[in-house]
Amino acid sequence: MVKIFDRERIFRLLTYKGILLKFKSLGFIRVFSDNIAEALDISSSLVRKDFGIFGISGSQKGGYHIDRILEKINEILGTGDLQKVIIIGVGRIGEALIRYKGFENDGIKIVAGFETDHRKINPQAEIPIYPVEELRDYVRKNSIKIAIMAVPEMVSQHTYELLREAGIKGILNFTPTSIKSSEGIVVNHVNIEHELANLIYFVNLENRKDEDTISNNQ
Amino acid sequence: MVKIFDRERIFRLLTYKGILLKFKSLGFIRVFSDNIAEALDISSSLVRKDFGIFGISGSQKGGYHIDRILEKINEILGTGDLQKVIIIGVGRIGEALIRYKGFENDGIKIVAGFETDHRKINPQAEIPIYPVEELRDYVRKNSIKIAIMAVPEMVSQHTYELLREAGIKGILNFTPTSIKSSEGIVVNHVNIEHELANLIYFVNLENRKDEDTISNNQ
Repeated sequence: MVKIFDRERIFRLLTYKGILLKFKSLGFIRVFSDNIAEALDISSSLVRKDFGIFGISGSQKGGYHIDRILEKINEILGTGDLQKVIIIGVGRIGEALIRYKGFENDGIKIVAGFETDHRKINPQAEIPIYPVEELRDYVRKNSIKIAIMAVPEMVSQHTYELLREAGIKGILNFTPTSIKSSEGIVVNHVNIEHELANLIYFVNLENRKDEDTISNNQ
Repeated sequence: MVKIFDRERIFRLLTYKGILLKFKSLGFIRVFSDNIAEALDISSSLVRKDFGIFGISGSQKGGYHIDRILEKINEILGTGDLQKVIIIGVGRIGEALIRYKGFENDGIKIVAGFETDHRKINPQAEIPIYPVEELRDYVRKNSIKIAIMAVPEMVSQHTYELLREAGIKGILNFTPTSIKSSEGIVVNHVNIEHELANLIYFVNLENRKDEDTISNNQ
């Protein structure tokens, strides 16, 4: 049976992968949980606990083999093959993502964009932009499973339906709307307003805690 | 004393706020938990539970007064005043965020950008871009508490130190590096690679569950 890890642990796993690739590029062959913990500013007991849960083993004396951890991480993540991702909606955010070069470390490649605005169509570009009418054929021919959605809010539900009908199984939604989703399709949200508002809440909370402390001391 | 809510609940609170503003713009004065639940594709018992925890009360017969919920939400979020936010690093992502118009619904305004690349400096723009040397003075004069960090990975720790010294209290970090942060400053991360890799993990998991089911049935 497949073990299921929660979002937070998967995010930490991805962070471990990133730092291990960096250690490796510096010539390291083995690492200790303390190395990882210090680089990531977390406790080494958390690293050891995570590794235990992920089934990654090392010895106290010799530490962990970087290559073996990386293999195990890739096995858990089900990566290995390059994951092809499309973007639907090539506005400011979509364009910034299309031009972003940092994904390939994580085995991810943006392969095409889709747009309704015909001035943005450019099938000859390094990462081609096609009219949205070609979405379905493209997804099927290229076995695409993952899409980034960066369309205007008012067309987000309609775009979701298009993606679902084309056979997309996972959507990263940058549109600030919740979507009525169906079974068999995973929708995750990146909502930058909410990230900011959440940050402001926690910063204000710190201030209010300070005020509480001051009034308690008086 | 100040009640502290976790990240997930604050995100839901922000989602409630968004949908309530939409209901209000449609002319609604009251809503029922079922209205909210259906619009957001969640259970109405979760809505009622959240409202209970947030101290929002309504009657089963008359539902909730939208304005009263919104007041309560703003009180919890500690918003009300417009929150001024700066961006450090005006590359593709930074630029997309500067030009994005959607923040003001959440009481957030991007007021300035800061850059080291002098070709990008433009103090006359609608949202001015200043050289990074002016960061400290600007933050102090304008009592800025929140910054978005969208700089290249290799300068992220240095940029963090600059922001901290200038008096910034909360950072939304778009750089795919973890930062060694200090007390009294909140750092949240938006890591789009990790969001994608996490989505791919869950989509693969669905496939593997299907395979398991198939092999179990054989």
